Amino acid sequence: MIISEQPSLEVIKSAAIRIQSYIHRTPVMRSAFLDGLSKSILFFKCENFQKAGAFKSRGAMNAILSLTPDELLRGVATHSSGNHAQALARAAQIVGTKSYIVMPENAPKVKVAAVEHYNGKIFFCEPTLAARESTLQKVVGQTGADLIHPYNDYRVIAGQATAGLELIEQIPNLDLILCPVGGGGLLSGTALTLRYLSPSTKLIGCEPLGADDAQRSFKSNILCPSVNPKTIADGLLTSLGSLTFPIIMNYVSDIITVNDDEIIQAMKYVWERMKIIIEPSAAVPLAVALSGKIDLTGLKVGIIFSGGNVDVNNLPWKQQ
Amino acid sequence: MIISEQPSLEVIKSAAIRIQSYIHRTPVMRSAFLDGLSKSILFFKCENFQKAGAFKSRGAMNAILSLTPDELLRGVATHSSGNHAQALARAAQIVGTKSYIVMPENAPKVKVAAVEHYNGKIFFCEPTLAARESTLQKVVGQTGADLIHPYNDYRVIAGQATAGLELIEQIPNLDLILCPVGGGGLLSGTALTLRYLSPSTKLIGCEPLGADDAQRSFKSNILCPSVNPKTIADGLLTSLGSLTFPIIMNYVSDIITVNDDEIIQAMKYVWERMKIIIEPSAAVPLAVALSGKIDLTGLKVGIIFSGGNVDVNNLPWKQQ
Repeated sequence: MIISEQPSLEVIKSAAIRIQSYIHRTPVMRSAFLDGLSKSILFFKCENFQKAGAFKSRGAMNAILSLTPDELLRGVATHSSGNHAQALARAAQIVGTKSYIVMPENAPKVKVAAVEHYNGKIFFCEPTLAARESTLQKVVGQTGADLIHPYNDYRVIAGQATAGLELIEQIPNLDLILCPVGGGGLLSGTALTLRYLSPSTKLIGCEPLGADDAQRSFKSNILCPSVNPKTIADGLLTSLGSLTFPIIMNYVSDIITVNDDEIIQAMKYVWERMKIIIEPSAAVPLAVALSGKIDLTGLKVGIIFSGGNVDVNNLPWKQQ
Repeated sequence: MIISEQPSLEVIKSAAIRIQSYIHRTPVMRSAFLDGLSKSILFFKCENFQKAGAFKSRGAMNAILSLTPDELLRGVATHSSGNHAQALARAAQIVGTKSYIVMPENAPKVKVAAVEHYNGKIFFCEPTLAARESTLQKVVGQTGADLIHPYNDYRVIAGQATAGLELIEQIPNLDLILCPVGGGGLLSGTALTLRYLSPSTKLIGCEPLGADDAQRSFKSNILCPSVNPKTIADGLLTSLGSLTFPIIMNYVSDIITVNDDEIIQAMKYVWERMKIIIEPSAAVPLAVALSGKIDLTGLKVGIIFSGGNVDVNNLPWKQQ
């Protein structure tokens, strides 16, 4: 069942209870080294350890557990080459329904394999947004499956909002949260959680320069989709949606961009110093923290490590 | 002050208290995927998250905190190209004494940089054991520094024993612990802890085939050092020592070897599935668990991830 209103605090809290047996309450980690570099006190919410390797399991699980019995019979569908595809296929498998995933024919093999691992039925199409959407329409028409959009869906937004909910329970009184922004599901969900429960905590969206639609939309107050986004942060290529944009306009303080070199350097620091694997998209907020673009001196800062799905055979830096 | 007897339970417990403010109580992690592959219930003690990236901080810290005021004035010395060097330099810096580290001139730059980061004074020598030992003798002669051997020292063994102590507190009633073996400091320390506190838990040493001196020594009951060890597990090139060997003979059930391909595959599984970074040496026990050489069906198995110091610019598998 679609929710037609911005999720209330009750809706977010219900989502947290609904999904709790199916996801991890992920740990918050620290790094003395990165505190020193950023001159602040950083708290990393490790959604890279989440089921299926990213926060996307929260929204997908909440959406699927919100389906009526009739809807469950018909299954779910989406288009995604990334973490939402895996998360939705996993959530569908858990509740015993079918998932139909439209993927571009050039999707990385590891991501195709992950969807197959969860018994998702894959429909390949040309790697354009138009082909993805038309293929998805066809699949939905044929199967009657419920379309679960990666971010422009309040059930998904309410699910993503639970990451921030856990973080402020684990670390109260944060001065600031830095959150990656692609389509805006995680950012808008975090915005709602903070508005309801920690309004004094500032929230800044962190975006790759090569896919800066959210910053342009935010500055102009007009939704401007990306045209040819290009960045190493492959999870943040998407553009804000009609549901996520207004929430972000209302409750986010700023959107700050960083370039791919800054993203890769931040990612490397986390691998080398914290000994944990995060994907490029997850490194964007830390890259912002280290960019010097905002003064974090002495602040308590939450950073959401959004995911850890990296092809370790194809790293974004050169081997010696 | 040198300890001249095998550490008693009291000595190990004192070590744990002595070092507790200077090291992390590392978490124990799980993986449903690796449980399935190994048909057992695996508990991973994450010493890759330890200070300076490896369990070696335990032994080095305990040795340094056992020094008399006079010894502290003269500083400490060792030869090592690896994790003990970093750990000792860090421990010396914490207590405000000097560390003199003899390193082979071909030591990886990252490891040299790590020792320098902790203000260790480095003496380079030719990359042979003879040159390392003679250079160390010279340094000790000139400085009067206390020699802290990487493993053949009861203060160090008592420190390493605290990793197993934490693990059995965190997860009681393990059927088996799989532990990497190089010089035998971690294995002999774990053996003593289990003997005192959990004698029904079996302990198996896990060794790279290319540096199988421990297995040969164990089978023949004669200490046989490695001649030309060659393995990707660079932390396990050393040979058992006169202090570690008898403890291992008495209290370890078996030593099992795996080849480099098995080690690399196990390491990759951990990176991809658990999203944490372990070094090749740390992957050896998991490689044993997955090798089929022992039947683990249904057992509760502890695995010590000994460290996470990897040069991410020089991975042991090819990039696409």
